[in-house]
This record gives sequence, C-alpha cells and structure tokens, in this order.
Amino acid sequence: MKVRRSNRLVDMTRYLLDHPRELVSLKFFGHRYDSAKSSISEDLSIIRNTVERWGVGRLETLPGASGGARLTPLYSKKNAATVIDELVQAVNDDSRLLPGGYVYLSDLLGRPDILREVGRLIATQYVDQDVDVIMTVETKGIPIAQSVAMYLNRPFVIVRNSSHITEGSTVSVNYVSGSSQRIKKMELSRRTMKEGANVVVVDDFLKGGGTMNGMKSLIQEFGAHLVGMTAFAEGQFDGERLVEDCTSLIKVDAQDGVNRHLSAQPGNYLEKVFKK
Amino acid sequence: MKVRRSNRLVDMTRYLLDHPRELVSLKFFGHRYDSAKSSISEDLSIIRNTVERWGVGRLETLPGASGGARLTPLYSKKNAATVIDELVQAVNDDSRLLPGGYVYLSDLLGRPDILREVGRLIATQYVDQDVDVIMTVETKGIPIAQSVAMYLNRPFVIVRNSSHITEGSTVSVNYVSGSSQRIKKMELSRRTMKEGANVVVVDDFLKGGGTMNGMKSLIQEFGAHLVGMTAFAEGQFDGERLVEDCTSLIKVDAQDGVNRHLSAQPGNYLEKVFKK
Repeated sequence: MKVRRSNRLVDMTRYLLDHPRELVSLKFFGHRYDSAKSSISEDLSIIRNTVERWGVGRLETLPGASGGARLTPLYSKKNAATVIDELVQAVNDDSRLLPGGYVYLSDLLGRPDILREVGRLIATQYVDQDVDVIMTVETKGIPIAQSVAMYLNRPFVIVRNSSHITEGSTVSVNYVSGSSQRIKKMELSRRTMKEGANVVVVDDFLKGGGTMNGMKSLIQEFGAHLVGMTAFAEGQFDGERLVEDCTSLIKVDAQDGVNRHLSAQPGNYLEKVFKK
Repeated sequence: MKVRRSNRLVDMTRYLLDHPRELVSLKFFGHRYDSAKSSISEDLSIIRNTVERWGVGRLETLPGASGGARLTPLYSKKNAATVIDELVQAVNDDSRLLPGGYVYLSDLLGRPDILREVGRLIATQYVDQDVDVIMTVETKGIPIAQSVAMYLNRPFVIVRNSSHITEGSTVSVNYVSGSSQRIKKMELSRRTMKEGANVVVVDDFLKGGGTMNGMKSLIQEFGAHLVGMTAFAEGQFDGERLVEDCTSLIKVDAQDGVNRHLSAQPGNYLEKVFKK
C-alpha cells in the first residue's frame, strides 16, 4: 500500500538515523513505501535541507544503479561550540576533585545525553576519513568508544589489562604508564582487529599519555593504521607527554592539597576540527 | 521564520529520537518552528501513526499546560521475534566455542547494529516500569548497559571488580561465583546510585548466576530496588542457579571436549515480555 509523503518522511528519517553513514538504496525506500523513485528523491532533499538547517547532519545522495542516500550525523561548528561549553560547565565543580588530583567523571560518562553529545562530537572529527574500528582501553573509555561507534557506524574494540578466558588468543604489549612510570601490560583479542584496519583511539582522560602510547604500539603489532586519538578530558601534566597530537574536548586543571581547586575549560577540539 | 510541515516532521522525528521517553512540550516545538500548537499536534499524530505502523515506537501526547509529547522507542512482538532470530543466527557458529565451554561474543557486543537491537529489545521489556538506573558489572556487560540506557534515557552504572582511585568512596560486597565457587568482591562508587533507586541489571552471559546475585546484594546495600535482570545469553548450567527470574535473549549450549559443538536458540525473552 502506497505510503504518504508525511509518513515517509518520518520513517525515512528514523531509518536513516538508525543506519548512520550507510548507503541506503532508493530502490529499498521505493519498495518499502510503494512509491516512485522521483518521490523518494524529493523526500531526500527535504531531509537534506532539514538536517543542514539545524546543523545536525549531512545527507549525501549518490546517483546511478548502485546509488542511494547516506545520512552522516555530525555537529555544525556552532552546535559543537555550544556542546563543549555545556561539558565544561558540567565538569567545573570542585566536588569532582578526588585525592591525588584525579577527577570524578563516572556519572557524566554514564549519562545518555552526555554520551550522545560526546559521541557525535568525536564522530564529527573523523567523518571524512576512512575509519574501520574505534579502539579504547577498559573500563572508563568504553562508553566513549561505544558512543563514537554508534555515530560512525563502525565496531569498537576493548583493550584489556589482563588476559580473560573468554577473549580467545590475544596480542599483548608492554607500556610505560606516563604518570606513574610503572611498566604495565595491555592486550587485545586477536580476532577483533584486521591487519591494515584504520583505527581511531579514544579514552576518557589524558595525563602522561602512557595508555594512548600503549594502544599505538598495539596498533603497530596488529599491522593496523592509526587515524587519530581523542580524549574526553586532558589533565595538566608536568613533564613531556608520551603522545603528541591528541585531541581533547575539555581541559581540566585539578589541584589537590592546601589550595584545592578544579577548573575546566575547552580543550583543543574546536581549533583542530574546524580549522579549515 | 515559519518552518514547513515537511521540515518540521523530519526535525521533530530526529529531536524526539534524540530525547527518548522525555516529555517535550508543544510550546517548545511551537517556538522552534514558529508554528501554531494545532499544527504541531497534527504533526505529532502523523509521527504516532508512523512509528506504530512500523512497530518501532510509541508516541504519547499529554494534554494540558504541562503537557507535551513523549516518544518511546520499542519493538513490536513481530520485530522482536525477527531480531531474536538474527541474534541466534549470529551466535550459532562453532568457531565461537572457546576452551572450557566459553563462548566468544566480543565481536557482536562491539557492533553498533547488534547493540542497537539488543538495547531496544531490553528497553522494550522495561518500558512500562519506573527505571532510574541500569546496572552492570565490568567489562563485557558495559556495552549492553549503555545501549539499554540510551533507549530508556536513564544513566547506567558500572560495578567494578577492584577499587579504582578515580571512583572516590565505594560500597563493596562479597559474592560467590556460581560457576567457579570462588569468593570474589565487587564494588560500586557511592555517589553513582541513590537510595530507593529502581534498578535494571544487565549482563552479557548468565551461567551460575553468581555475578547477578552479587549485584542483587549490592542493590540491597544501597537501599535500592531491583526491577529486573536480563542477560544477552544464557548458558547451560549443571546445578542450581543462584538467581531465578532472569530474562535471556538467547540460549547457548556450548560443549567443549571430544564432541565439540555450539548451538544457539531463542531465550525466554519473547514469552516473558509478550505474554500479556
């Protein structure tokens, strides 16, 4: 039964958002709604104009037999700046300061609204690059990796700190923790990543960069390729970081001791992502 | 500037999907699109009919000054049955069998398409109950908890196996692992959960039920309330389970040894959730 335009628009929007960055053929939609390709094409231009107008996505249409439409969720520069400000305000709270200058973020990284924002911000950064997989290390990087994975529509893999029986055979590397200078070990299940894969690395907090550096070594061990690294928050670090070129959404200056204070500000995200 | 119906439908659908189970006022939409409330009401009934027709959600409209619209993503029984069959097929693969009768699932639980399906299935189960928080234990339960949290629009909390400096003060319980009969310890950051909270517990794999039982104790320690427990997969277990009444999306019979084989089938989800 023929579906009316108004109903098509609602269902197509939902379908495309549920399949981000996936090429959906006009034929599929034509069949689903029992409608002519020309009508579907008009629907798609309405969707394109709407998501562009609100700065929440980009719709590409590819012509030809293998053609179709692809919706890429992303933030416009203006929306990104607003969201970064919201994140800064959410973190800027002295009660988040923990002993040793650590920062409590677990509540934020368990909130769906925050994770949607963080995922869409980081996905926006890599939207024009080939990405095959998103990598993080357990535990607190996982929600960020998953959220980015949902928007980029690519799988994520979790690097673990010790061997687990349910992972099967693994590849492991030793790495030096930048802040504590201890040698640790991290490993990844062999079947989760292919040689030559393009990898985006994400984590919750960047201090000395030891963990990020460990993941870089692991990517080399797999013969894979590093596309970029992004951390939710970047802390202050006295000394030389083990990684350069890491993007951060926010910066946090946390001081324990007599003059306890915590202050958050925007990281280098906006200048790195919207420099063009 | 007045926004046309076709553009309103696309943006409203996207907005409501980005804010699941949240009451959005007609006033908000009226303002956003510079349109009369009567037009917005008509838009909402188009959205309601569409999501019902495709079995992907429910739109409620509440009248009055504090009224508005709320979109709840869910699966119809038919869609749920299709998705469960897909999951069974994805798991039904002898190469997933690991030594000791364990099952390799990490690839599936890192795939956005699978996580969307799993999250929406489990959210559908609890959609008519008061849920304040989704709880899981690190590491492999996290993607499931996050996905359920996204659809229920409630935060999730991660129970950890050992103390971590960046969690602040914690509450811990000892529990007996049902399969290995060892005594272990799990803990949760004190600030992540409030007394009286209604908690849904999720995990990747149910064997003896020791981990689920540990989370039950932890919920009691916090003075919180257990709403229900759901596991992605339920394995065979010789002996008495430590928890009853756990929902499972699929069942896996995995045999190591001479007669190595693995077979997956639907769990008790459909009969438990759609019995009414």
